[in-house]
Amino acid sequence: MSRLVVVGGDAAGMTAAATARRRDRNLEIVAFERSAHTSYSACGLPYFISGLVADAADLIARSPAEHRALGVPVQTRHEVIAIDVEAKRVRVRDLDTADERDEPFDVLVIGTGATPVRPELPGAQAAGVFGIQTIEDGIALHDWIEREHPRQAVVVGGGYIGLEMAEAMKHLDVDVTLIERHDQPMGTLDPDMGELVADALRGIGISLRLGTDVSSFATRPDGRVRAVVTAEGEIPADVVVLGLGVRPNVELARHAGITIGDRGGIRVDGAMRTSAADVYAAGDCVESWHRLSGRHVVVALGTHANKQGRVVGINVTGGEASFPGVIGTAVTKVCAYEVARTGLGEREAADAGFDAVAVRVDSTTRAGYYPGSTPITVKMVAERGTGRLLGAQIIGQEGAAKRIDVAATAIWNEMRAADVAMLDLAYAPPYSPVWDPVLVGARKVAELV
Amino acid sequence: MSRLVVVGGDAAGMTAAATARRRDRNLEIVAFERSAHTSYSACGLPYFISGLVADAADLIARSPAEHRALGVPVQTRHEVIAIDVEAKRVRVRDLDTADERDEPFDVLVIGTGATPVRPELPGAQAAGVFGIQTIEDGIALHDWIEREHPRQAVVVGGGYIGLEMAEAMKHLDVDVTLIERHDQPMGTLDPDMGELVADALRGIGISLRLGTDVSSFATRPDGRVRAVVTAEGEIPADVVVLGLGVRPNVELARHAGITIGDRGGIRVDGAMRTSAADVYAAGDCVESWHRLSGRHVVVALGTHANKQGRVVGINVTGGEASFPGVIGTAVTKVCAYEVARTGLGEREAADAGFDAVAVRVDSTTRAGYYPGSTPITVKMVAERGTGRLLGAQIIGQEGAAKRIDVAATAIWNEMRAADVAMLDLAYAPPYSPVWDPVLVGARKVAELV
Repeated sequence: MSRLVVVGGDAAGMTAAATARRRDRNLEIVAFERSAHTSYSACGLPYFISGLVADAADLIARSPAEHRALGVPVQTRHEVIAIDVEAKRVRVRDLDTADERDEPFDVLVIGTGATPVRPELPGAQAAGVFGIQTIEDGIALHDWIEREHPRQAVVVGGGYIGLEMAEAMKHLDVDVTLIERHDQPMGTLDPDMGELVADALRGIGISLRLGTDVSSFATRPDGRVRAVVTAEGEIPADVVVLGLGVRPNVELARHAGITIGDRGGIRVDGAMRTSAADVYAAGDCVESWHRLSGRHVVVALGTHANKQGRVVGINVTGGEASFPGVIGTAVTKVCAYEVARTGLGEREAADAGFDAVAVRVDSTTRAGYYPGSTPITVKMVAERGTGRLLGAQIIGQEGAAKRIDVAATAIWNEMRAADVAMLDLAYAPPYSPVWDPVLVGARKVAELV
Repeated sequence: MSRLVVVGGDAAGMTAAATARRRDRNLEIVAFERSAHTSYSACGLPYFISGLVADAADLIARSPAEHRALGVPVQTRHEVIAIDVEAKRVRVRDLDTADERDEPFDVLVIGTGATPVRPELPGAQAAGVFGIQTIEDGIALHDWIEREHPRQAVVVGGGYIGLEMAEAMKHLDVDVTLIERHDQPMGTLDPDMGELVADALRGIGISLRLGTDVSSFATRPDGRVRAVVTAEGEIPADVVVLGLGVRPNVELARHAGITIGDRGGIRVDGAMRTSAADVYAAGDCVESWHRLSGRHVVVALGTHANKQGRVVGINVTGGEASFPGVIGTAVTKVCAYEVARTGLGEREAADAGFDAVAVRVDSTTRAGYYPGSTPITVKMVAERGTGRLLGAQIIGQEGAAKRIDVAATAIWNEMRAADVAMLDLAYAPPYSPVWDPVLVGARKVAELV
């Protein structure tokens, strides 16, 4: 009988374990998680902070007890501190007793996740400065808000998590300033679309400081954060949220001699195998293959983590599954605004060696005459010559963002923009103009290739 | 210089004319339309009836005057009564003066649209019994409602238009009974999904009479409708809406010797050419090719009409465009419920010669913990052996229906269900669970093939 050890209790690791258990009732499984929690939605933390989700427990898809009941014994408050890939054993520390022991494995799954980037700046560790990645981070920020009633929040970083946290603070009627070192929020969008996002953010009362670097965090005598310091002066803040992205947790793997990729994640193949025999990895700690650029990328997203975990669970139980890579699809919501992207932007397409053309179209989410129809802007990027659709970006209001999935599916299938324009998409006035905005974008960009 | 004559002022014909005009400023164009209106959204009529759209004029995308200003001279209240494909001329009657004249063409476009099916039953022509296809139909019904204040409506036919008209009547606080001769509403869905639609309709207070044939319409002494008569008795009605679908208007083409297909529409090739040289047809009067079944179908949908008109406009001006066919995508809304389908249902797949398997999954439109998350049911049909996705059906509430477009795009590209399950779709808690319902459906059906 084989023994599967899982390092990390997040979505990837626990999905791997649960999938393996479903496929093989006899496999011995043990999972180690250093926190007290398993399988929660980090993506849901902003909505717990805003109060839209009342209880952090609501974000937990499956508790340790539920995992155990389903045949996945998970030991929480247990940290794997070393992996010996030759001897096939891990060193585990019980965080409550500080006892350490070795645990053998036949197959190992690394799902160590990622950690929020903290700038190495004076005051970055001050009380009132929060990263948001784990449920503990979320609970800590939530408690701070309950206790301190902050009135001025600064969010550092204008990416997805930054925008979502800015929305959360607006929900709580806290003044929000968003600081972004680049000239636009949402650096994964092209600048013209980023500008529309900036306009939307200003429109909902979020102060933007673009092209601005944080130099330090000023503190009060009691050690709590007082302001964020930039070259243009201080921005008062009684709470600071860092939305600077996350870094894969790879030190454990690196020390075990497992290959780390040039983007800083654990390098895996399509089957999610690492460079070490019988060692798999999945989730926020790995690099994924980008199907368009052909490069490795680090994308911390629950949907990838779940798929990758499932692929591992199949492969460690004699099946054959492959994670087919990503195309950079992402979506976020900021108050009434929906922002989404997939594939390559203009700049990314050029970087990846494509001769790309792009077009931007304005349309509406529903038939113009139907109540609730709102503006939507769609940008499409295609390859000159082949006419292949390379990317799409969308900004709009209700019903706008999920349209990105059509572009994602089309790009995944390497469709020509001209063919995308003729797709048989669902039309009825409550859902779409007679030409869906995605069709219009594809049609227009097809005219340029 | 060439002369283009367009028969019919609906979306297909006028899109053809407008596209041709944009591509060729010198082309002589003349369009004839027997009504006073052009380019309106018949799909929007239910929302004019319900009052959601205040003015019938809002449904008009481009009026005759606007067409003329853009270089497309359209003569309204002019009916083409004969086509001579050999002599290349049409016979036109001025409906106001009854004058007739011949008009020569080099290229002809037939866009004669469709007419609602009226059952040949006693009383079917009674005052208060309405079909809904043209804007005149809509205005007539609207006026009737304003004048008569009906309290009991019967909708005959449980297809898209029937459901939308039932919703419209509910909006007006009129009691609604829906009569459908088959055992389920939405005959384009599989019975198990049709049952869910039936439950939803009952839940919003619409009385259903399924498996029920109308035998006649009973009238009052003044000739107005009083009740709908069935084998199970009379259903009182002071207004009746026929939602029995439409029939292509092909008599003009048929008399000209142009080939009519076995489904009753004008037969065209991919370039939208009819059997007669230099005669094209587009819109609700033609048959389309179904990419999955390989059969011809008649689908009256504005989105097809617009695409087909554009293809014609390109082809008659020296370009090369092709309408690539349909896969049966459709969507409708009934109060809070959204219903959509694409590809082949179980029965249709069997009819088309596929060995099909199917699965139904229940999920939510957003992350379960996110406010506004509502149930969604997704059915997926795939081909045994190849694993190819053949069809999808969706029932849910806000945010459910347009997900059908992902399935449509996947089916269009002949994707395997297992590959659909790994698509990089947009995930964030306000938009989707971590596994989008479409991914779950694809994953589950992939396990059966």
